[in-house]
Amino acid sequence: MSKDAEILKKFKEEAENVIKTFENKQNPKIKIPLRTLANVYFDEKERLIKLGEKQQTRSFFNIAQTKKFMQTFLIASAIKELIESGKTTSIRDIFYRTKHTISGLQESTFEEQAESDPIIEDIEVAFDVLREELHLYASTRGAMVGNLTIVDSGDIIDLRKMGSGGWAVPSIVGPDVIQFKDCDADFVLFIEKDAVWRRFNEDKFWKKHKCLIIHGQGVPPRGVRLLMRRLHDELKLPVYVLVDADPYGLYIYSVIKQGSINLAYESMRMAIPEARFIGLSIFDYEKYKLPKDVIIKLEDVDRKRISEILKYPWFQKKEWQAELKKMLELGFKLELEALSAKNISFITEKYLPEKLKNKEWLD
Amino acid sequence: MSKDAEILKKFKEEAENVIKTFENKQNPKIKIPLRTLANVYFDEKERLIKLGEKQQTRSFFNIAQTKKFMQTFLIASAIKELIESGKTTSIRDIFYRTKHTISGLQESTFEEQAESDPIIEDIEVAFDVLREELHLYASTRGAMVGNLTIVDSGDIIDLRKMGSGGWAVPSIVGPDVIQFKDCDADFVLFIEKDAVWRRFNEDKFWKKHKCLIIHGQGVPPRGVRLLMRRLHDELKLPVYVLVDADPYGLYIYSVIKQGSINLAYESMRMAIPEARFIGLSIFDYEKYKLPKDVIIKLEDVDRKRISEILKYPWFQKKEWQAELKKMLELGFKLELEALSAKNISFITEKYLPEKLKNKEWLD
Repeated sequence: MSKDAEILKKFKEEAENVIKTFENKQNPKIKIPLRTLANVYFDEKERLIKLGEKQQTRSFFNIAQTKKFMQTFLIASAIKELIESGKTTSIRDIFYRTKHTISGLQESTFEEQAESDPIIEDIEVAFDVLREELHLYASTRGAMVGNLTIVDSGDIIDLRKMGSGGWAVPSIVGPDVIQFKDCDADFVLFIEKDAVWRRFNEDKFWKKHKCLIIHGQGVPPRGVRLLMRRLHDELKLPVYVLVDADPYGLYIYSVIKQGSINLAYESMRMAIPEARFIGLSIFDYEKYKLPKDVIIKLEDVDRKRISEILKYPWFQKKEWQAELKKMLELGFKLELEALSAKNISFITEKYLPEKLKNKEWLD
Repeated sequence: MSKDAEILKKFKEEAENVIKTFENKQNPKIKIPLRTLANVYFDEKERLIKLGEKQQTRSFFNIAQTKKFMQTFLIASAIKELIESGKTTSIRDIFYRTKHTISGLQESTFEEQAESDPIIEDIEVAFDVLREELHLYASTRGAMVGNLTIVDSGDIIDLRKMGSGGWAVPSIVGPDVIQFKDCDADFVLFIEKDAVWRRFNEDKFWKKHKCLIIHGQGVPPRGVRLLMRRLHDELKLPVYVLVDADPYGLYIYSVIKQGSINLAYESMRMAIPEARFIGLSIFDYEKYKLPKDVIIKLEDVDRKRISEILKYPWFQKKEWQAELKKMLELGFKLELEALSAKNISFITEKYLPEKLKNKEWLD
């Protein structure tokens, strides 16, 4: 059964249950897993942030829940229509599609998108699907090039021939939309910054080192994360993450690897627990004898963030603790561009090839 | 002569002048057009924001100017090296390349990128070149698809076969990097939001209406603006701009059309005075009988911005004044997604085709 058919079937079953309950003059309810922090835990074995077992019940005959109950079915109905039409749209669009004044009342179904977005998340967890599978797309950022041919919506795209711009990674990248063909890449290199990605593309790093390079302009958007996860799962490509040596860079790595705490319910589908941190390591400052002009002093907020990260269950390995403590000890952070102080292509010609050759990464 | 050779020649001439002045025991100076607001004006005839004639002089034997004089030559030297190597890089990278402790002193050439960026702008205006011609790239956003084949860095890319993602528009899009081939598009449609662009791509609007669709996620980055300008100049394609009916949307249109006041020195090279505003018009609310649920009330800051825009010399046509005054009178703004209240593809199947057919645009 296609994912679309599967979702429509689940929706129909849930709706029929509700109708039946009404007919029996009972109070219809839906159960939705709780997305609060208290219901989030780190699964040591799978090395993933996961959602616990706690659920909330939303019932129709409960004044505090009636509106949300109605909103849930309203959004589900709009999604059903979307799936049936074979189209996709944005979560903002769904808000506009479903917002209307309730007939006979002065009240609107929704006032703001801040009301409809959590309902979409409720439906995601209740039906165990990603919003992309509900035909909803998020904002996109990021591009990819490298040794792979893909099919995107029926168009064959050779990522070896994408010029300086690259293929813009869309939001919905499931197997219905994107298929992989003809791969001769050995790994995926995620690069935090588009400016550094351009260096790697211009120097044709991906050709020389048989890989795919991808960026997401900061914290990668869902499309980039889901695509890397598929490349990892289906093509068995290891994923290397190249970020600044600062708390934000480590956060980006953490999001790719374990998922984010706020979106714990999606981690299992998007995170890559085997992702490897290939740099920038704070130890590289001494190792590569970088000039002191490239350092950026830690701010109080950086020290605070590092202290928090030190406690994350997934950063307890001694190498990670050493990395974080060294950053505090030196009292500075480093950006990827710091390597350009040596030479503009130092990062593509020496730094990364050495790291890969000597297997110098953290995971 | 190639642009690269031309720039290197100008740099050499300037440097030789300075050396000659030193040898004659005189005070070397460079002249740089002033980029202050006081030196900006609107050219009614060309309908462009332009830089006036005022210049500043930067001389070596002037304590207040010595450091900036040195910084200017330091950056120019790094750019020369970059051009000679045939590589491109980011302005952040150039900062790291040129930042160092001056030998024998405790002082750095630059403390922050906020010091080196204006020097790059100085060089742009002094030598009448764009930073992209100096091999410097900005951050990128945006994607394009449609009835055109391009060559990007030697790779042939058919923009008719770019799937759901599209070709990511790079920052440097000059004729050395990007060439146009095989165009059967009749116009360019710029869309403010990537989510709306996806609607147009999914519905294959560009195929049916023979055009190119491009977005820039808000205010378009330099690469998108420069590319549209080239498509307009070289392929004679009219450019239509589709934005929200709000002050920010009008600002985006204004930037595309006249350039921004802060970057007046670049307007002549990037602006498209013939660009047409195709929507969303505030009059469309009544015309298309949109439900009142889609309106967003104007905030004080919106009213203030609209009052400012009313005074812009390039919004003095009576149609523009009517548009702006109607927005104030109705007291609300509208987003492109508001059209989805009618139907998810209303914008691609009815709204825009009608606008184009009836030539309903403002310029």
